[in-house]
Amino acid sequence: MTETAPRPTLEAVAARAGVSRATVSRVVNGSEGVRERLAERVRRAVEELGYVPNQAARSLVTRRHDAVAVIVAEPETRVFADPFFARQLRGISKELTAHDNQLVLLLTEDRDDHERVGRYLAGGHVDGALVFSLHIDDPLPGLIQRAGLPTVFGGRPDWSGGRGDVVYVDSDNRGGARDAVRHLLGLGRSRVAHITGALDQTSAVDRLDGYRDVMAGADPRLVVEGDFTAASGERAMRELLGRCPGLDAVFAANDLTAAGALRVLREHGRRVPEDVAVVGFDDMLPIAEQTEPPLTTVRQDIEEMGRLMARLLLRELDRTTGTDGPPSGVVLPTTLVRRASA
Amino acid sequence: MTETAPRPTLEAVAARAGVSRATVSRVVNGSEGVRERLAERVRRAVEELGYVPNQAARSLVTRRHDAVAVIVAEPETRVFADPFFARQLRGISKELTAHDNQLVLLLTEDRDDHERVGRYLAGGHVDGALVFSLHIDDPLPGLIQRAGLPTVFGGRPDWSGGRGDVVYVDSDNRGGARDAVRHLLGLGRSRVAHITGALDQTSAVDRLDGYRDVMAGADPRLVVEGDFTAASGERAMRELLGRCPGLDAVFAANDLTAAGALRVLREHGRRVPEDVAVVGFDDMLPIAEQTEPPLTTVRQDIEEMGRLMARLLLRELDRTTGTDGPPSGVVLPTTLVRRASA
Repeated sequence: MTETAPRPTLEAVAARAGVSRATVSRVVNGSEGVRERLAERVRRAVEELGYVPNQAARSLVTRRHDAVAVIVAEPETRVFADPFFARQLRGISKELTAHDNQLVLLLTEDRDDHERVGRYLAGGHVDGALVFSLHIDDPLPGLIQRAGLPTVFGGRPDWSGGRGDVVYVDSDNRGGARDAVRHLLGLGRSRVAHITGALDQTSAVDRLDGYRDVMAGADPRLVVEGDFTAASGERAMRELLGRCPGLDAVFAANDLTAAGALRVLREHGRRVPEDVAVVGFDDMLPIAEQTEPPLTTVRQDIEEMGRLMARLLLRELDRTTGTDGPPSGVVLPTTLVRRASA
Repeated sequence: MTETAPRPTLEAVAARAGVSRATVSRVVNGSEGVRERLAERVRRAVEELGYVPNQAARSLVTRRHDAVAVIVAEPETRVFADPFFARQLRGISKELTAHDNQLVLLLTEDRDDHERVGRYLAGGHVDGALVFSLHIDDPLPGLIQRAGLPTVFGGRPDWSGGRGDVVYVDSDNRGGARDAVRHLLGLGRSRVAHITGALDQTSAVDRLDGYRDVMAGADPRLVVEGDFTAASGERAMRELLGRCPGLDAVFAANDLTAAGALRVLREHGRRVPEDVAVVGFDDMLPIAEQTEPPLTTVRQDIEEMGRLMARLLLRELDRTTGTDGPPSGVVLPTTLVRRASA
């Protein structure tokens, strides 16, 4: 343990500088009203003793920690397994670092841990929170609200319709899905299947809605539920080939799912794109370029979403009260990226 | 922003319960000396108002946050790119969660951010710190020491020789390296090259020392510096083939580096293991099983290292002062895992 020296106290600084505790406290917290000669003596004593102000005490005065919590509402195993999260965190990290704010990533094993996360958020350790990958019925938003922390969500929370004060950053999931399916129809395909994402997340619901916008009246057996993982893409593709052997295209809810589907199509001797055309969602590199064949997909700028979330939150933290509220939702456009798979 | 209702204050609870602020504070912080009838009224008011105690104030009394900081002294891009860190974090997360402690991962862009991390650690937001992937000359240990936080290091810090109070968990890097090189010599190889890890880290230095223990007097051109990444393995392997075209074996400082080296050997038409036998370090799955051919490697239990780091720290936090200190270093054994590459 690094406990070689006891941590210097406020009292020690006061004694060294020959001033009162209150004077030290005022200087350390940047308050006015201390004569420069005294302030200088305090600063010298702080320097000499290597005194670090106790932030718990200090934050009672300043109420700013220059720290932002990030919560990915997924088990930590998924946070590290799915490159989507690393990409979003990269955008957040760059933006927070540019403003000298500490990124505090709160990891969990499962949803049972969200109450503990709520306690930490309520504990006065961070100025605000960035939350993404929320699932419907997650207790987290309620816990955050109770903590009274300014918060920006990544992805539209399912309850945002009813609460105008929710700030979120999202992609145009429904429009992107429509583009994907229209592209497949434009190639002359007619039996277009869809492997969904986790349907307790709005991004998956919106992409399914986009598919249905274009494929209204299609055979409902062409839709199989997945959960955004490659394993679910494999499972769903097997099920689709059993149910609808005549399918000629697949729109997968993300690139990982599409990669799983491609593996199963190859196993079954279906040529892509000749027999079955495949489109993904995300344009997650290098995955989308390394699949066999490379993946046509709907690009969303994930890193920019993270950056924008951080920017909106920092702006809110700097905002003087009483001005106009921030926008309730920012929806970024998507673009179709054509590669060999469709 | 989730700011629909202002956060209830201690004053509001006091008013609702008809007691003083001090009484509310005592009940909330679990102090003795409040009559049960009053305490019950306070608890009811807390419940009705949805009051959450301000942890910043509360921690001044209790001095425990049930939160542990984890710092990986690498840019966040590497934290997410190298599965080693995910593995170690998994062990830490499991152990902390089992003890209802919050894992607070402090991410950084580069070493310039370590001062900000030091401020956060000194700020009274966590009870202790777990630090890994330290580099020589990193200012972090000094900043942590100044923050006065109990700390456990993953990997032996380079200055631990001089300070008996440093607690760390490490693998037997030198012994594992010796096993790897002896295995190669046992296969009849004599021109055994070594691609090192980042030599500003003790793990890389120890593995190099293990190589030299066995290969004393070997051609110094057989050692090329890498940095634990696959890209460095490719670069170093190219250099080795240029310098010492007659080499018949490579010991790489980790599996990622070995994977890079294997790619370059294949490019150059060298058969593994027939022409060049290759051994890695880590037994990082699935990488070590998916290389072509599968990799013979030195296994270290990375997840267990993380778990042990967390366990040692939690024990220290629970320790009553005055008892024997914790062990200064725990070194876990390694084992050679034989696959096709050597």
